[in-house]
Amino acid sequence: MSVSMHKISVPVFIRGLNVLAGLLDKAEAHAAEEKIPLDDLFNARLAPDMLPLSGQIQRVSDTSKNAIGRLTGVPAPSFPDEEKTFSELRERIAKTIAFLETVKPSDLEKSEERDVAINFGKLKFTFTGDDYLLKFALPNFFFHVTTAYDILRNQGVAVGKVDYLGPYS
Amino acid sequence: MSVSMHKISVPVFIRGLNVLAGLLDKAEAHAAEEKIPLDDLFNARLAPDMLPLSGQIQRVSDTSKNAIGRLTGVPAPSFPDEEKTFSELRERIAKTIAFLETVKPSDLEKSEERDVAINFGKLKFTFTGDDYLLKFALPNFFFHVTTAYDILRNQGVAVGKVDYLGPYS
Repeated sequence: MSVSMHKISVPVFIRGLNVLAGLLDKAEAHAAEEKIPLDDLFNARLAPDMLPLSGQIQRVSDTSKNAIGRLTGVPAPSFPDEEKTFSELRERIAKTIAFLETVKPSDLEKSEERDVAINFGKLKFTFTGDDYLLKFALPNFFFHVTTAYDILRNQGVAVGKVDYLGPYS
Repeated sequence: MSVSMHKISVPVFIRGLNVLAGLLDKAEAHAAEEKIPLDDLFNARLAPDMLPLSGQIQRVSDTSKNAIGRLTGVPAPSFPDEEKTFSELRERIAKTIAFLETVKPSDLEKSEERDVAINFGKLKFTFTGDDYLLKFALPNFFFHVTTAYDILRNQGVAVGKVDYLGPYS
């Protein structure tokens, strides 16, 4: 009749991070084929005051690992936003996945009842753990995965919905 | 130690649909202020082969109501993609929310164990209900909410992350 907090978070995040890594592969192949500097994609954005591709990936990393940090009460590792290349973005993704893989279902036991305080610009709010995950962390996580995808589509990279959803097997 | 299938789906979808309605308000205000035809926003897209704003909203409606249809085993109402105006898009959103509000937690009992078969282009796959929701329906739902937001940002509409996340209280 119900689903564990672990199942709603860790594998969902790992899946999205792997999707992102696949999008970076397609972006690199596109840049090579079209003879576009990779930096053009690295720095591409949808609006002047939105984060570029690199920033979207950094936020995917942070939203996932910090959500788990907040839900377990054990702070997630801090990764400074210093990536300058696609290969460094890939490393950021890999380090985030490596951290998430250390989280056991038992680490998230009763996390749905834990108080999670958010201080996000003007937004100050204390959630229960499950509300935090469902109303804040997951929407925010998918926002940044999707926006990374949308930036690449907007730049003409041939990615499709199947690349966004990821493989099923 | 766990969260109900209802809590992971219905209120999350309703929240996202209300967020969309709020984005339409901001888009209309922007068009009025900048003296841009509303149709320019209605038809705006990020890539020639992506759906425009109107299509993103139709897909948010379908991904949410059809996910619930598949998980309960009772088909969701069918809404043809015939909207031509912002007010018709609002109606589509309202009808979708009205349907979702009829779904009771008990309607989704044991839906995590239900087989859900997906036939999506080349993708043919049978999920358990919880995997379907977490690996397909929710990512797809947030994809279309985020892309609607991204289209508006790309068109210069002054929306921000707080508009995407929605109110907390």
